[in-house]
Amino acid sequence: MYPANEHAIGILDSGVGGLTVAKEVMRQLPRETIYYFGDTKRCPYGPRSEQEVRQFTFEIVHFLLQFPLKAILIACNTATAAALEQVRQQLEIPVLGVIEPGARAAIKATKQNSVGVIGTEGTIQSGAYEKTLKRIHPMLNVSSLACPAFVPLVESGQRQTAYARQVIAESLKPFQSKKMDTLILGCTHYPLLAGLIAGVMGKDVAIISSAEETAAELSTILQHQHLLARREKPLHRFFTTGSADSFKKIAQDWLGQAIRVETAELEPVTPAYRVKVF
Amino acid sequence: MYPANEHAIGILDSGVGGLTVAKEVMRQLPRETIYYFGDTKRCPYGPRSEQEVRQFTFEIVHFLLQFPLKAILIACNTATAAALEQVRQQLEIPVLGVIEPGARAAIKATKQNSVGVIGTEGTIQSGAYEKTLKRIHPMLNVSSLACPAFVPLVESGQRQTAYARQVIAESLKPFQSKKMDTLILGCTHYPLLAGLIAGVMGKDVAIISSAEETAAELSTILQHQHLLARREKPLHRFFTTGSADSFKKIAQDWLGQAIRVETAELEPVTPAYRVKVF
Repeated sequence: MYPANEHAIGILDSGVGGLTVAKEVMRQLPRETIYYFGDTKRCPYGPRSEQEVRQFTFEIVHFLLQFPLKAILIACNTATAAALEQVRQQLEIPVLGVIEPGARAAIKATKQNSVGVIGTEGTIQSGAYEKTLKRIHPMLNVSSLACPAFVPLVESGQRQTAYARQVIAESLKPFQSKKMDTLILGCTHYPLLAGLIAGVMGKDVAIISSAEETAAELSTILQHQHLLARREKPLHRFFTTGSADSFKKIAQDWLGQAIRVETAELEPVTPAYRVKVF
Repeated sequence: MYPANEHAIGILDSGVGGLTVAKEVMRQLPRETIYYFGDTKRCPYGPRSEQEVRQFTFEIVHFLLQFPLKAILIACNTATAAALEQVRQQLEIPVLGVIEPGARAAIKATKQNSVGVIGTEGTIQSGAYEKTLKRIHPMLNVSSLACPAFVPLVESGQRQTAYARQVIAESLKPFQSKKMDTLILGCTHYPLLAGLIAGVMGKDVAIISSAEETAAELSTILQHQHLLARREKPLHRFFTTGSADSFKKIAQDWLGQAIRVETAELEPVTPAYRVKVF
């Protein structure tokens, strides 16, 4: 058994969106090994119930724990909102979500204490961003908007089309009249649409992708727990519940490197079993 | 006794420089109480030996520990380089320095993996930034430069003069020919000179002030340890070993609020005593 600081970081998402976070982890922490899991078959998570998303999250965590991991990163806002606290309570390794880092980045960026959040229905309905933002900074003005059409644009590979531009402009209309200087992309798929979103919001609105900040927070937590890796060339692994080919195509395009993708099947994890296992 | 999350955060510096960090903590964590200590009488720390700076740091930490603290932030690069690890080892509360957050921010910002660092002689000679940067990201190209003339400009209140501009242009000459897209202000006094430094370096170089990032890392650590405060109006305290009036003048100007400054005397802490006390 090699020492814990050489263990991998488990990163999970409903599909390919969490690759925006994985890419930033690779860039900011080039010595770290990533085991990425995309539950593409059941994507999107956004319209599902909180209970179902929590169940799915536990199944993926259970799958990933067959490997020696030193940290888990829930790189999906919907899953973070539904399951972060529960997964944290059951594991001894650090468990990070994407909501706290995104909230912190927005607090750092806003000059007028006025922040907008876009995300899936699940994330927006949970109120998780607003709660996290106000917990840290009670005087913030927060506006939220669900954009259910965005994830399908990315997962279907249409992110650079005229249709995407039209959907985005239409979806963001309710934000045109709101006063805000900072917009949180509260879904890990959205950075793949960042250019189009920024175009609609205008240059006076700072766009916050939680990917960069989440990678930096992971770096902080690993360093404070003496868990930074020392190896020179990490060997990442990628798992998907859907088509390995289609996952590979999007992932290689986005990551800019050749990767090997493995197909995985998840076992149902019952709540009682969960307590026993974790 | 009130719960630990309502305890104060101890912030220490050789003088007023650490106020750049305190100001960011107030902005990003408006519920947190700060007990700030500026050792103005013995400022600057930069030209002193590592052993002496470590001794001074322990004396301040000892002073601050008379109050209930939930975290300590060494808001001085020289003291961080000289004493962070030793203070961390002896305390059970989180102890943060300014070097790791600054290094992480530079890694986040650089596009060409090419970073410059300026700081006091003590900080640059310690190699602490280079070590921290390469520990996380071995492929980085790092150039370092000591700028001993900068701290006296700030502490003497000359930061907005033509003389300051001239000193800064002269000091940064060795960096004019270096390839870098990111410059770390490796001294908490330097953000007070950021405008002039940016003017000399040109607009293609991102200027990293560790103040913003240190406050964000403090937020991360407090949240992960369930230590965020809940109070509405924190009551900060400021201590100085030098003239309370002159500290107050600079501090109020920089913080943009009225504060009360207390004069403090430090007791010598011997290494043997240290082990007993901490």
